[in-house]
Amino acid sequence: MADKVKKAIAIFDSGFGGLTLMRQIIKTLPSENIIYFGDNLNAPYGDKSKNEIINLAKKAAFFLYQKDIKALLIGCNTASVYAYDEISRHFFGLPVIDVISPSLKMVFPLSKDKKIGVIATKATIYSQLYRKQILAYNPTAQVFSLACPTFAPMIERGEFENLKEIKRALLPLIKKKIDFLLLACTHYPIIQEKIKEAIGEEVTILDPSSAITLELENFLKRAQLKNEGSLRGRYEFYTSGDAVKFKTIAEKILGIKINIPIVYLS
Amino acid sequence: MADKVKKAIAIFDSGFGGLTLMRQIIKTLPSENIIYFGDNLNAPYGDKSKNEIINLAKKAAFFLYQKDIKALLIGCNTASVYAYDEISRHFFGLPVIDVISPSLKMVFPLSKDKKIGVIATKATIYSQLYRKQILAYNPTAQVFSLACPTFAPMIERGEFENLKEIKRALLPLIKKKIDFLLLACTHYPIIQEKIKEAIGEEVTILDPSSAITLELENFLKRAQLKNEGSLRGRYEFYTSGDAVKFKTIAEKILGIKINIPIVYLS
Repeated sequence: MADKVKKAIAIFDSGFGGLTLMRQIIKTLPSENIIYFGDNLNAPYGDKSKNEIINLAKKAAFFLYQKDIKALLIGCNTASVYAYDEISRHFFGLPVIDVISPSLKMVFPLSKDKKIGVIATKATIYSQLYRKQILAYNPTAQVFSLACPTFAPMIERGEFENLKEIKRALLPLIKKKIDFLLLACTHYPIIQEKIKEAIGEEVTILDPSSAITLELENFLKRAQLKNEGSLRGRYEFYTSGDAVKFKTIAEKILGIKINIPIVYLS
Repeated sequence: MADKVKKAIAIFDSGFGGLTLMRQIIKTLPSENIIYFGDNLNAPYGDKSKNEIINLAKKAAFFLYQKDIKALLIGCNTASVYAYDEISRHFFGLPVIDVISPSLKMVFPLSKDKKIGVIATKATIYSQLYRKQILAYNPTAQVFSLACPTFAPMIERGEFENLKEIKRALLPLIKKKIDFLLLACTHYPIIQEKIKEAIGEEVTILDPSSAITLELENFLKRAQLKNEGSLRGRYEFYTSGDAVKFKTIAEKILGIKINIPIVYLS
């Protein structure tokens, strides 16, 4: 049983976004071993069709399923929205965790005026999942959803400081005078400071990575899968894109030195 | 793997309280097989010491561990507060779920004025867990905790209509003009209508059993343990108390006919 606990948590994302989650998981659960796969070659998922997203996500999940893992965290909102059920169905016996519900649970405790902005990829916004779930919680809330299709590609290029583009993209939300902004794409915490600068200090911005990590920890605890060992976790990286570029950007986001990622092309 | 899914969910409570959860689980997850153990002989747990609660809860959990189960739901707030870690530590490889966190997540979306009442057993209130967690969410909330030590024994006796005692016990809260009342003992939904009558129509009362069931469902889904079969679940009951009394009261709470419970004395 102890062996099971020592297996790795797999995290998968369309690219670099899931690293914001990994950063938080390393902080909160330092003993956990982690295998990360970034499908950078196919990023962003947010402009693709439902079928394309499902196919890519299934391929990524199947690749990780064959590793020595104890659970899969879909570290990508777009894939969580469209491919959770499909992945889960083929992930016999291994837990699959998504990023949607933990962040939704954080919205109401934190939003004061209930003028809630949600930014995400085109595909996530198009699904209307966040809007529907927030209104199901509180029908009197005002939800302003905005697709920001330039953000993930910008971040995939390693461009984290483009305030001009961030301001341009967020203009419709700035006008709405929201009090709360949910980052519903794991890429966005990487540019959170610039988003704050663009949208104004008075708006509470929710990077859901702590909430997701807390839910992951709860899950592992309940499933008797939490690694409580005193050894520091080992990390292993895979990308479908450029390994050197991955290493540079991942080190910037995680704030630690990492091994050269292994290139996986399906 | 299919076999694992068909194993039962075990629910354990100090007595009849966990049946309010079982009622909701039957509604939401009709295919799940359920084994229920009510430690009626030792009810209520809420007046006992921490050590006594831990010992009783561990005994109950160990009894259920030996059955063919896939997960344990601690259907008792008092045992969740004091014995979760201890049970979890000895429940090798089998998931253990508590009733605390799901209900806490529901408080803020539902409470308008943030004048929040919490009623529970002596031991639960004494732990201050709910107060602390609510204030951690929102330091400006007003939390009014009240132990209602007569409620669980009343319910264990099968006395569900004693409005006079319910009013007497709730008087300190009635004076506080709360807008929201959390039932932090699984026994209390059994007398929810009378509580409503006592505290006033304008107070929103939260029976957390739907939230707990939703979280249980989420957990089972993520852990690949949800039974999605089309057969109706089978139910098996154990009590440390009087089997005939258990049957009568359980049928009243669940609204279905049940088999005579098996008496288990540790």
